[in-house]
Amino acid sequence: MKILVLNGPNLNLLDKRPVEEYGTLTLNEIESNVRQNFPAHSFDFFQSNIEGELINKIQSASEKFDGLIINPAGYSHTSIAIKDALDICSIRKIEVHLSNLAVRENFRHTSLTASSCDGYIAGFRENSYNAAVYLLEKIVGK
Amino acid sequence: MKILVLNGPNLNLLDKRPVEEYGTLTLNEIESNVRQNFPAHSFDFFQSNIEGELINKIQSASEKFDGLIINPAGYSHTSIAIKDALDICSIRKIEVHLSNLAVRENFRHTSLTASSCDGYIAGFRENSYNAAVYLLEKIVGK
Amino acid sequence: MKILVLNGPNLNLLDKRPVEEYGTLTLNEIESNVRQNFPAHSFDFFQSNIEGELINKIQSASEKFDGLIINPAGYSHTSIAIKDALDICSIRKIEVHLSNLAVRENFRHTSLTASSCDGYIAGFRENSYNAAVYLLEKIVGK
Amino acid sequence: MKILVLNGPNLNLLDKRPVEEYGTLTLNEIESNVRQNFPAHSFDFFQSNIEGELINKIQSASEKFDGLIINPAGYSHTSIAIKDALDICSIRKIEVHLSNLAVRENFRHTSLTASSCDGYIAGFRENSYNAAVYLLEKIVGK
Amino acid sequence: MKILVLNGPNLNLLDKRPVEEYGTLTLNEIESNVRQNFPAHSFDFFQSNIEGELINKIQSASEKFDGLIINPAGYSHTSIAIKDALDICSIRKIEVHLSNLAVRENFRHTSLTASSCDGYIAGFRENSYNAAVYLLEKIVGK
Amino acid sequence: MKILVLNGPNLNLLDKRPVEEYGTLTLNEIESNVRQNFPAHSFDFFQSNIEGELINKIQSASEKFDGLIINPAGYSHTSIAIKDALDICSIRKIEVHLSNLAVRENFRHTSLTASSCDGYIAGFRENSYNAAVYLLEKIVGK
Amino acid sequence: MKILVLNGPNLNLLDKRPVEEYGTLTLNEIESNVRQNFPAHSFDFFQSNIEGELINKIQSASEKFDGLIINPAGYSHTSIAIKDALDICSIRKIEVHLSNLAVRENFRHTSLTASSCDGYIAGFRENSYNAAVYLLEKIVGK
Amino acid sequence: MKILVLNGPNLNLLDKRPVEEYGTLTLNEIESNVRQNFPAHSFDFFQSNIEGELINKIQSASEKFDGLIINPAGYSHTSIAIKDALDICSIRKIEVHLSNLAVRENFRHTSLTASSCDGYIAGFRENSYNAAVYLLEKIVGK
Amino acid sequence: MKILVLNGPNLNLLDKRPVEEYGTLTLNEIESNVRQNFPAHSFDFFQSNIEGELINKIQSASEKFDGLIINPAGYSHTSIAIKDALDICSIRKIEVHLSNLAVRENFRHTSLTASSCDGYIAGFRENSYNAAVYLLEKIVGK
Amino acid sequence: MKILVLNGPNLNLLDKRPVEEYGTLTLNEIESNVRQNFPAHSFDFFQSNIEGELINKIQSASEKFDGLIINPAGYSHTSIAIKDALDICSIRKIEVHLSNLAVRENFRHTSLTASSCDGYIAGFRENSYNAAVYLLEKIVGK
Amino acid sequence: MKILVLNGPNLNLLDKRPVEEYGTLTLNEIESNVRQNFPAHSFDFFQSNIEGELINKIQSASEKFDGLIINPAGYSHTSIAIKDALDICSIRKIEVHLSNLAVRENFRHTSLTASSCDGYIAGFRENSYNAAVYLLEKIVGK
Amino acid sequence: MKILVLNGPNLNLLDKRPVEEYGTLTLNEIESNVRQNFPAHSFDFFQSNIEGELINKIQSASEKFDGLIINPAGYSHTSIAIKDALDICSIRKIEVHLSNLAVRENFRHTSLTASSCDGYIAGFRENSYNAAVYLLEKIVGK
Repeated sequence: MKILVLNGPNLNLLDKRPVEEYGTLTLNEIESNVRQNFPAHSFDFFQSNIEGELINKIQSASEKFDGLIINPAGYSHTSIAIKDALDICSIRKIEVHLSNLAVRENFRHTSLTASSCDGYIAGFRENSYNAAVYLLEKIVGK
Repeated sequence: MKILVLNGPNLNLLDKRPVEEYGTLTLNEIESNVRQNFPAHSFDFFQSNIEGELINKIQSASEKFDGLIINPAGYSHTSIAIKDALDICSIRKIEVHLSNLAVRENFRHTSLTASSCDGYIAGFRENSYNAAVYLLEKIVGK
Repeated sequence: MKILVLNGPNLNLLDKRPVEEYGTLTLNEIESNVRQNFPAHSFDFFQSNIEGELINKIQSASEKFDGLIINPAGYSHTSIAIKDALDICSIRKIEVHLSNLAVRENFRHTSLTASSCDGYIAGFRENSYNAAVYLLEKIVGK
Repeated sequence: MKILVLNGPNLNLLDKRPVEEYGTLTLNEIESNVRQNFPAHSFDFFQSNIEGELINKIQSASEKFDGLIINPAGYSHTSIAIKDALDICSIRKIEVHLSNLAVRENFRHTSLTASSCDGYIAGFRENSYNAAVYLLEKIVGK
Repeated sequence: MKILVLNGPNLNLLDKRPVEEYGTLTLNEIESNVRQNFPAHSFDFFQSNIEGELINKIQSASEKFDGLIINPAGYSHTSIAIKDALDICSIRKIEVHLSNLAVRENFRHTSLTASSCDGYIAGFRENSYNAAVYLLEKIVGK
Repeated sequence: MKILVLNGPNLNLLDKRPVEEYGTLTLNEIESNVRQNFPAHSFDFFQSNIEGELINKIQSASEKFDGLIINPAGYSHTSIAIKDALDICSIRKIEVHLSNLAVRENFRHTSLTASSCDGYIAGFRENSYNAAVYLLEKIVGK
Repeated sequence: MKILVLNGPNLNLLDKRPVEEYGTLTLNEIESNVRQNFPAHSFDFFQSNIEGELINKIQSASEKFDGLIINPAGYSHTSIAIKDALDICSIRKIEVHLSNLAVRENFRHTSLTASSCDGYIAGFRENSYNAAVYLLEKIVGK
Repeated sequence: MKILVLNGPNLNLLDKRPVEEYGTLTLNEIESNVRQNFPAHSFDFFQSNIEGELINKIQSASEKFDGLIINPAGYSHTSIAIKDALDICSIRKIEVHLSNLAVRENFRHTSLTASSCDGYIAGFRENSYNAAVYLLEKIVGK
Repeated sequence: MKILVLNGPNLNLLDKRPVEEYGTLTLNEIESNVRQNFPAHSFDFFQSNIEGELINKIQSASEKFDGLIINPAGYSHTSIAIKDALDICSIRKIEVHLSNLAVRENFRHTSLTASSCDGYIAGFRENSYNAAVYLLEKIVGK
Repeated sequence: MKILVLNGPNLNLLDKRPVEEYGTLTLNEIESNVRQNFPAHSFDFFQSNIEGELINKIQSASEKFDGLIINPAGYSHTSIAIKDALDICSIRKIEVHLSNLAVRENFRHTSLTASSCDGYIAGFRENSYNAAVYLLEKIVGK
Repeated sequence: MKILVLNGPNLNLLDKRPVEEYGTLTLNEIESNVRQNFPAHSFDFFQSNIEGELINKIQSASEKFDGLIINPAGYSHTSIAIKDALDICSIRKIEVHLSNLAVRENFRHTSLTASSCDGYIAGFRENSYNAAVYLLEKIVGK
Repeated sequence: MKILVLNGPNLNLLDKRPVEEYGTLTLNEIESNVRQNFPAHSFDFFQSNIEGELINKIQSASEKFDGLIINPAGYSHTSIAIKDALDICSIRKIEVHLSNLAVRENFRHTSLTASSCDGYIAGFRENSYNAAVYLLEKIVGK
């Protein structure tokens, strides 16, 4: 499988965020961890702080990839534009979050973008990404 | 008249969105359709998925154009920044939508940006744009 | 085309309402203006302050007309009964408003009745009606 | 028993409304069906799209009828005026609806007018009326 | 002074409403009481259960009367159409209510129509009308 | 017909609840009353204060019964679990209430469970059950 | 009659407030105006910016006065304490406001304290007080 | 690892629920599928429709199991009691859902119980359970 | 006095809950503490995690006990069914909570069940129970 | 123990408030009752209708008293200032209410000030105070 | 410049409030700090726990001072009366807060009184006051 | 000190925005004004209409600057992404606004981003920036 892994704003600075919520790995280390766990697949990791660049990537995903893993971070809760881009994207899509959003501020309790994915996973730090790949193996092509 | 036509996120992928809401034309075909219907005017079509690039275009519109047609798409409902840019823009402005937003999800029922335009049109697919040009002919310079 | 143009409460007194919102024309002058702009079509203009009379007219529209233009005025925001009548009406329907409702009181920001029309136009004074006819020309029979 | 059966806006066009919600009978056929089921009672069926005419009928009901069956349709959810008229009316009153309002739009989930009746029935199409007569037989005079 | 006194739905049946809220007088007796208290003025009393007929009367008031007293009853809380009619009406306008709305159901606590009058009085039964005439004497022509 | 009649919490103590809301019959007397009124059908009456036991019964109803009458009492307004059970149940289902919920506390004004039934009846004390049987006679098998 | 007239915060500075809302009279001039209009009654005018001092006055009113006129100003909308004091006070009580609160900010649209008075008057500047005395003449002792 | 898998109301009837939301497997087949995928672990599957029985099981989990997988179904959104039980439970806990709750009714969009787990997974039918075991392998003991 | 002390879900595991909220005693130790403080009374302590079992106990309380002390725990905030059971119960009833609910999550700030008791006490750990007995001594039989 | 008992607005007029909510004792009689029940402690009773005076007292309580009992009456629900004063006060604090607030108006259902006390008691008339002293005996110094 | 510095409830006890929010200075030390930083101006510091006394001071400020600095503390969020007093006051007005209100409880996130000042500063402890004086130097007389 | 001054959308067009809210200076003139007032510090001014570019700048600020002044303009009220970036940024941060947001539209009354700064200043036009520098002098390094 070819898998696109999109990361939204501030995920490039994981080492400066609270360990109890985000874990101890940097985004690069998460990438290494995922590649190591799933050597059979090819991954394209992309991070941007710009909402529109994430949309650009989502729009081009259908033709090049078998599955999409996205952590929209702060844009999860407000971005109708990313939601619309996901709706158009015809491959399997999984939303992931490092932290358990249900224990954080109210405005993080609902996700607009999750409703345009196949499903979502939250709270397992780097393993949210690993579980997403595990799940893509199960659902892609079915 | 010189008219700027701005299109927000995901409007570059109309051919992949539901026909009953967005019609059957691509954005390029909409552009051709409008140019064909109104050969007397010159049009500048611009699409971007990036909120700030749309703002940049709006900011420069007053000096170069007689009228502005904008489909802010997903940004219509949340972007105070686009609203503020439209407030500053001193030419005639019309907000258009391809689909009838009133029959879709709750979060599409009100538009922040429409309150900074002269008026708005929704639900007529490509003809929302044509009607906007028709209206600019009526109101520009008055 | 035979077009029914329905006007709701207080639109018979346009000359007494604020010019910046409603323009300078009376309802009769709007009617003349529309007839003059579209001499090829036949129009039936009807105004009533009574919600039920507007419903009566909508109910009989399908058999006699090709298209319906309606300005429900104050009833737009609360009348489930007019909404239901529009749902039953099988011809093309366009909701129009003279003023840009998005810049007025909160209770005018959403329209119950618009969700039972093909689309809606607001903010262009008499030209909201003209644009509606222009659009009916595009969409009736398609 | 003499029973007044009041029907609100758009119930005169049942044959044009969705079968899964409203059933297959016209209002006239519902009337026949009820008369046939309950030949011992005399019925006065009245339909109006005008809120105030329904109020007029409710106001005069106490003196001429033993029971009132009302389907306020779209006015159920907003009409304080019909509610007040029902409060004044001293005979037994039952609110009926053809469709199960609980599965439709949010604004149909609560009924202002039901709180001024003895009770309410919804979801059984023409049989909502039949059940109302059945119940009036049980409760009138007790 | 020539004064129009408008009464909304169900006020024609005061004798059947709770005494502690509406007092013991019928609408006719209120009319007599007001005429007796203010013999120097001429009054036109009008009651209707139909929202649109009240609007018709308000629309014609400016030319024939010096002041308007209106008890919109159940329409006070929901009728944008009556509010708009009052906004257009250029004479002095006072909203009155027989009962103290602040002690009744929540939906009676705010009045849409009062914001289009000079002021409002509530809670004094027939004397709400008398006080309104007393106030018109003070404010008409000033 | 074989009919299951389910009664939720506290309906086993009707004789201790206010007469004006619940009537004067005990649940046993309601059962007798229904059996007497409809001797042609066989009934299975079941009452439980435990939400899950009601769900157990609903789950087994499809195979053994032709129709289901349920008074979920206090669980009507909050139980997603009973609602889901009713959704799965493939026979005709009618929700009944002894009292007119529309005149009681706000939290009783909407019913989650009613949206998973064919319809609902409220306000007629023991006759709510009788009317439900009357309606099952009309709709079962159609 | 002996009448207590209570004025809440900032009413001692009427001459510095907007004329279109508060009129042109100072509180002293309002007092003179009322005394002049009703020479037969004795009045006790009291103003305080302190919520608790207003409560003290209300508490002592029942024994010394026949009627109470109160303009709670900014405390009208939030003071449960003044409301409770008015509930205890057994004489006739009328709430008055100089301006028409219905046209001002949302937080002035409902009054907690009015629900503990016989009724309320708003929008007639100094004449709100005069009308209150006029009404006390009508209702005291009845 | 010893893993407790708890299933809430109506999950025993998966074969009667919509395939597009719940998939095609029965709960027994899900159990087999999980056991087959993870033969190294021992599993205890328990289903109940009774809220309190689920609580009983959660309370006893800490001493006998290494990890807890729970699908609280309809209780997810309202049960403070299950949430409190999870808070007390000191082993790793993962909430799973078969369907993507974000695309269903509003009342399913937030989960009270998820905030007392380590994280949550939704939308992958039987694979939500498999992913949960996959994640327990990663996080138990860390 | 014979006193029934009911404890809701998770109160059987107090020793595993946060000390600053729930104190250091187990439910058994609370029971001993209360018995020791009030040796003159006989107590029946009952704990259940099942909502319906608590209702069963409440229903049978009137005949066997002089007073009821109930800590509904997580059911306090949502259980209309327990509230209805308490309404039926004719002896003195006091709701107690170990922790001060006002400093915890929003959903614990209001109690549905407290409105069907004589009063409520919260925040004093085991002494909430002791104070409840102290109060029953004062109010039972008066 | 030295105990300060603070009483807020209108508690000085208990004999004029409804018996079913406030009981039959005056504030002085409550004071006597408490002193009589707890002769070992010294009490300082203070009542004021002025929010700021209550704050003054609370501010000085820490140095002179061992415990504080406060009935903030109408200020309980809105006074951030009293809440802040209580937060600063370092001795044990108990909020009491004579009536069961949960059965009264909505605006009395939550207490801002209770969240800055150790706990709260409501509904037992004069015995709310007695129970508070009983509890101070248990918790002061622990 | 002559500057009035008003401090609302509980600011006289800063040394007893949390250091991370309020800093380490007492109100007297803040006063000294400000005087030391701005020796060219004369200051009048006033603190009161009584809302009405703050209003009294604001009312008299226009004539004696060039600028007003106010920390309304707990009254910021609820006091319409202080807001009205500030509206009347014609000199420059700056609202200050020691703590960053945006990180505290929801009820502190909006300030009613700030909308009647020239602007507001929050979060800099004693330096909020210093910055206010710095700003008055910039804006007074302009 | 090295200070980064970030300006959000539309602040590059200040000369086209209303003078009463934004003052008369352009952003360049504000920059000159600040540099002139604080010649001892070095400033880096950056403006962008693109949310993600502002985030990029914030992310790099900690290493190069001693303090951050940010005017997020329209993004203040909705951008969780900017808020998260500010949370990560470890230097002192002050949010500034030219206009007094408290007197503008409701959606400008609360700021998501302010809760991730040390404090905020609003309403003083260019001097909001000057005061921010003044405050950084006070708080940086403490």
